[in-house]
Amino acid sequence: MFTRIDHVGVAVRDLEKAVAWYETNFGLSVVARESHEEQGVHEAMMQVAQAPAGGSYVQLLQPSREDSPVGKFLARNGEGVHHIGYGVVDVEAALADIGGKGIRLVDARPRHGSMGASIAFLHPKDTGGVLTELVEAAPRA
Amino acid sequence: MFTRIDHVGVAVRDLEKAVAWYETNFGLSVVARESHEEQGVHEAMMQVAQAPAGGSYVQLLQPSREDSPVGKFLARNGEGVHHIGYGVVDVEAALADIGGKGIRLVDARPRHGSMGASIAFLHPKDTGGVLTELVEAAPRA
Repeated sequence: MFTRIDHVGVAVRDLEKAVAWYETNFGLSVVARESHEEQGVHEAMMQVAQAPAGGSYVQLLQPSREDSPVGKFLARNGEGVHHIGYGVVDVEAALADIGGKGIRLVDARPRHGSMGASIAFLHPKDTGGVLTELVEAAPRA
Repeated sequence: MFTRIDHVGVAVRDLEKAVAWYETNFGLSVVARESHEEQGVHEAMMQVAQAPAGGSYVQLLQPSREDSPVGKFLARNGEGVHHIGYGVVDVEAALADIGGKGIRLVDARPRHGSMGASIAFLHPKDTGGVLTELVEAAPRA
């Protein structure tokens, strides 16, 4: 079902400091910056690898307000890994498959994610404490 | 410097239950099982993807004793993501590079990791709360 580890989502307090840190110390480059006000997050995608069907990224996530999901995560846990995104070919099919096994879904239907992807989150209470996202990358132009 | 996200290390209380969960719900298969008594861990590598230079895995980690690093992690945080492993071509060169930038190293020299890899950990206090491992995969037979 999975094609790759698409990304690791990391909660950070200061996006610019975190971007500079990953650039300087790990040699990664920003490939996209986005803000999603409805999710209360500013984010930067740092490319780890390219691959034929979508790359792999570190997704740095800074809350734009304290009561957002990432804001609450930071208050509770401090900076660190927030979620894992797995690549899938067809997110609707993957959701139907996984949901049909009784795993609760945060998103019963796919929604828009970073860089034009279609994404959906699974419920961490049903995934061994790992907030898990399914990512169908946007078709390449 | 990085070639891929090599693995996501996940702390679990019951390895057999976790393996069955990933098999049933995500369709992943075990490609290796190991126990490392000096680290106090039983582990299973579940393959997410194959790639020309090393694959990508979920590494399930069950402590074999409570005072091990993973045992302490579970007591403090419960089940969830424990660390992230990035693939590198040359772990000694990567350590020298990153260490030279002032990032503290848990392992000043590479040691043996899962599936014959040479690995080293960076200090999470210097990596934004993300325990980070560098992984030079074993040459293919």
